[in-house]
Parts: sequence; C-alpha cells; structure tokens
Amino acid sequence: MPIGAVRCQITVSLDGFVAGPQPSVEEPLGVGGMALHEWAFATRAWREQHGQDGGEDGVDNEVVTRTTEGLGAYVMGRRMFGGGEGEWDLSWKGWWGEEPPFHLPVFVLTHHAREPLEMAGGTTFTFVTDGIESAVARARETAGEGDVMVAGGASAVQQCLAAGLLGELQLHIAPVLLGGGTRLFEDAGSPRVKPVEVSGSPAVTHITYRVG
Amino acid sequence: MPIGAVRCQITVSLDGFVAGPQPSVEEPLGVGGMALHEWAFATRAWREQHGQDGGEDGVDNEVVTRTTEGLGAYVMGRRMFGGGEGEWDLSWKGWWGEEPPFHLPVFVLTHHAREPLEMAGGTTFTFVTDGIESAVARARETAGEGDVMVAGGASAVQQCLAAGLLGELQLHIAPVLLGGGTRLFEDAGSPRVKPVEVSGSPAVTHITYRVG
Repeated sequence: MPIGAVRCQITVSLDGFVAGPQPSVEEPLGVGGMALHEWAFATRAWREQHGQDGGEDGVDNEVVTRTTEGLGAYVMGRRMFGGGEGEWDLSWKGWWGEEPPFHLPVFVLTHHAREPLEMAGGTTFTFVTDGIESAVARARETAGEGDVMVAGGASAVQQCLAAGLLGELQLHIAPVLLGGGTRLFEDAGSPRVKPVEVSGSPAVTHITYRVG
Repeated sequence: MPIGAVRCQITVSLDGFVAGPQPSVEEPLGVGGMALHEWAFATRAWREQHGQDGGEDGVDNEVVTRTTEGLGAYVMGRRMFGGGEGEWDLSWKGWWGEEPPFHLPVFVLTHHAREPLEMAGGTTFTFVTDGIESAVARARETAGEGDVMVAGGASAVQQCLAAGLLGELQLHIAPVLLGGGTRLFEDAGSPRVKPVEVSGSPAVTHITYRVG
C-alpha cells in the first residue's frame, strides 16, 4: 500500500504561464519560455542532475535539492515527454538524451499505447493510456514509501488538481511576464490550497502549498 | 520636485485575478472576490484603519502597517472609486462612507470631469481626466517627499506598469482560485521586475518586486 505523497513542483511566470506562446520543436517552452527556468539552470543541484559542473549554492539550490529527495516515481504529460501528437514516432525517446535526469520510473500520460522504454541511469518511461488516476495510482504503487512527483506539463497538473490527486504543490514564481502562452490554472477546478512555506532569491520566489 | 516612490500593493488570487467574475453593485469584487481580502480584514492594522477594534498581530499585520507608512497621496481608477460608468451621479462619494480610510489626497482617474470632493478625516478625492501620467504626476507633486500609492483597480495598475510609472509592486497572493474575473497582468506590457522581499502566513503570501 503506497504511503508517499503526490507532489508537484512547477515554475510559473508572474503572469501565470508555464510556457510562452507558440511552442514548437525548436522552442518547446514557447517564445520567452526558457527564461522561466534560468533560476534553476543556475543552481549547483540542477547542473549536477544534468551532469554539469559548477553552479550556485544558496536558497534556490537548496530548493532544487530538496525537490528530488524522497521521490519514488514521476508522472508526466505527453507534451512534456514530447514527440508531437498522435501515434508515436518510436525514434522519439524524450527531450533528455540517452540518460534522462529522472533516474526513476516515469509514467507518461498519453492516448497512444507504446512499449516501456528503458533508458540509461535508472529511468524507465511507461506509457499509460487509461487516464490520470490510473497513472498516479501506478506511480504510487511503484514508488512505495517514496513520493510521486507530477512533473508537468500544465495539463497533467490541472488534471491532478481537478481530480483531487495532489497533496502538495510547490510553485517557483519567476519574475518574468510572458504575456501569453499556457496557463497553469486553466480548468484546475477549485482545490483548497494553503501556503505552508515561502522562500526566495532575486531570481525566483518559492511557495509550497498543501492541497486539499 | 517630488522624490517619493510610486508604489502599488494589491491582492491577487493564486490564479491571477484581482476580482472574481460578474462584478455588480452588490458584489463589486465579483463572485468570490471578497475571499481575496480576508487575510487583510483579519489584521489589527486594517481594522484600526477602518475604525474597528481587535484583529491579529503577526506577519500580515506588519505588512499592512508598513504599506501605509510614508505615503503622501493615492491614485486610483474609476472602477475602484465606484459610481458606475459614464457621467457622474454626484450623490456617489465612493464605497467608504463619510470618512474614507485614506486620510490623504486621492487622485481618481476618470473620463468624466467632476469637482474635488473633500471628505472627513483628511481624504480629498480629485478627479483627473487627462490620463494616468497626469494623475501620477499630480499625486507625486502633492505627495512631496512622500510615496504615491496606486491603490487599484487592475486597469490603473496595468496602465502604470505599461507606462513605466511604477517603482515598486507588492503582491499579496491569496490562496484561492477564482477561476475567472479581472486579471492583474492583462495588457501590462513587459516591465522588468525583481523580487526583493518575500514573507507570508497560512492566509497569504507577500512578494515585493522592484519594477524597472
């Protein structure tokens, strides 16, 4: 029986977007969307997770470090995994190369069945076609005592919020205005949220909400 | 020559609205909109400003106290002052009764001229018909070394952001999802913002941004 929490952490612009307008293969985060994540790219922990040296210590680094502690599995939406819409091009194995930074089982929400993909470094992508509740249930089962992280994108998070599946939502509010794009809280229902922790740097503000 | 700052502090829902859907005379903040301000109503400082006893001390109370320190004048939009649209019904003197809680000169942005209104307790409403830059300039002139507070609503704040008139923006992020209503950052342009202070309680999160 799973006892871990279901958590989500996601970066959002000050005007509420998780991606800018006109996402494309070249700019999967839309116009201006990469600016959302500059705070994370600058941290030692993020660089370490992605096989790079250096990076900054401090508040933001601590947040990134704690974010991946205690995890047992991930859930993500099809758009975050990438590879376009519709039937799979089987040569597509995600945005992250041969050794993705997850190092855990990842359950990908999709309408199109596909065999599991075992990658280097402990990441396995399993494709789930029977909805968000099933994806989260399978992730929890796999995670055991570990937490499940809903990695995004917006649609997966909204489905979790609307279905009451999320226990904790951590927002990283980037000090940028995108003026358009994909909104985090479109169609998210009316979940009860309560801020339990807040911190920040000149690069970003972190707020953790207990949900439900 | 004015040397005070131009500041704005405004409460916004987690999904980015400063008022809920369908605002009316009975519900000027729209459906669900009053919930945005519960954190403030609960504080000792807010209650004191509105002639009431009691209220809570703590982080939120300190924020309310500091918000009104050093002010010399206010700017507000027509919708915040109220009285409908179009030509004035001269019996309308704002939402706040005979002694409004401002106790300072207030410059009201409107398309319709009206004589200044002197209220009890030091509040004077002056109606400005030649645009946001003029309203802010007159408020700064009047405020002298004091700061100018842009009190809202969303349209006045957006005009200030888009015109580069704002030096500081303090957001109070209320842990509610309104699902619709008036967005704070619609048509706000692309001002540069940088978080300089963050604090909070289980009722609300405060982020202060330096603008420009």
